[in-house]
Amino acid sequence: MSGWLAIAGLGPGDAALVTPEVQAALDAATDVIGYIPYVARVAPRPGLTLHPSDNRVEMDRARHALELAQGGARVVVVSSGDPGVFAMAAAVFEALEDAPAWQSLDIRVLPGITAMLAAAARAGAPLGHDFCAINLSDNLKPWDLIERRLRLAAEADFAMAFYNPRSKSRPQGFQRALEILRDACGPERLITFARAVSTPDERLTTVTLAEASPEMADMRTVVLVGNSTTRRVGRFVYSPRCVEAGGAG
Amino acid sequence: MSGWLAIAGLGPGDAALVTPEVQAALDAATDVIGYIPYVARVAPRPGLTLHPSDNRVEMDRARHALELAQGGARVVVVSSGDPGVFAMAAAVFEALEDAPAWQSLDIRVLPGITAMLAAAARAGAPLGHDFCAINLSDNLKPWDLIERRLRLAAEADFAMAFYNPRSKSRPQGFQRALEILRDACGPERLITFARAVSTPDERLTTVTLAEASPEMADMRTVVLVGNSTTRRVGRFVYSPRCVEAGGAG
Repeated sequence: MSGWLAIAGLGPGDAALVTPEVQAALDAATDVIGYIPYVARVAPRPGLTLHPSDNRVEMDRARHALELAQGGARVVVVSSGDPGVFAMAAAVFEALEDAPAWQSLDIRVLPGITAMLAAAARAGAPLGHDFCAINLSDNLKPWDLIERRLRLAAEADFAMAFYNPRSKSRPQGFQRALEILRDACGPERLITFARAVSTPDERLTTVTLAEASPEMADMRTVVLVGNSTTRRVGRFVYSPRCVEAGGAG
Repeated sequence: MSGWLAIAGLGPGDAALVTPEVQAALDAATDVIGYIPYVARVAPRPGLTLHPSDNRVEMDRARHALELAQGGARVVVVSSGDPGVFAMAAAVFEALEDAPAWQSLDIRVLPGITAMLAAAARAGAPLGHDFCAINLSDNLKPWDLIERRLRLAAEADFAMAFYNPRSKSRPQGFQRALEILRDACGPERLITFARAVSTPDERLTTVTLAEASPEMADMRTVVLVGNSTTRRVGRFVYSPRCVEAGGAG
């Protein structure tokens, strides 16, 4: 019996945003591994073992998945959104680095609709020009690096998407991020708080940086900041495709 | 009769990467509008009119879609990948800006699997840490701004994804981009050329910047550049989730 491991993205929440490729992997799996709320999105069935685990045990989870696949299981590691964007794919490759014997396993990464693109779609097209994605959690990197990236991203006039805007371990971090952005981008820059997009808890709010406050975000929120040309049209927010010479920055 | 407009992403090519949400919109549509090769991916059926158009007529296409929807049609504008990433969504909002009467139309953006995430999944997890996406075409912005963004992105130690790496109007642009990257990131930095991912023409190549040459990319290629910690593990490339203090930059 030949095992395999698929590291799959479930999208932001709505089943209509799960790709057929990911659904086919789930349908063929013997084992599904992941963070509790993501595993809860997979329908139980005979022959499928669900392995929900708590947050912050990514490396244990990755090793468990590799062990099961090595033993012949058909394993899907599930992430919300896309597995390659601040999610489980990097953790699995980290585990693989420590265990060369597993490197010949059949391992595939199956992309999904990542939170920032689901949020951008709902808002309009705020990421319609060059942009960056930054994880604002300082669990895995020093806060100084986050601050430096924010300043450089503003200087580059990138639109920005922030994952994990409010880190439990550093509740003041997002307030500091907003201060840096106000300083670097000015008070009129548009910022969108997109919470739980495509779920019943969805809430979208667009304000200026002057009006933004830290409690507008929580752990289920993705934050989008426009570039210098991002503007409203009707109920939408978008970044024009075109930038004139000398027009940005 | 009540018309609507959906701006939908078809993903990178494989039908298994089209979301059920997008498929449902196509199934309900009366009209599909888009660039010739993308419209060719939609199955013809009675009651559905296909409107393929040439490249570089994005604004005409956007206005046509809005006019049809205003007249009561159920219109899907199709893009490859995600409509909000260097694709049709921004063009439709630009057209909407010029025509306030259309702003009350039922308009939705339906996200898709964008090329850089399909490419990253195939390569491993090169975008597993903070990253940026830059359109290297200078059709809609000055080349100087592209150069500035490349330098700032390197200084921020972002992983990078480049769309449209070789612009017909400026064949030397990508060579210049590679020179800037070699200068800013050093010759050992990993770069992945991902061509036509998820199609029969798929081809993935990862080399160092020292080994990279402009002809490794064409208009169907997305280019991914790692950050300072991106490395190989077995046949994969990934960016570790964790950066030590002082470790990046």
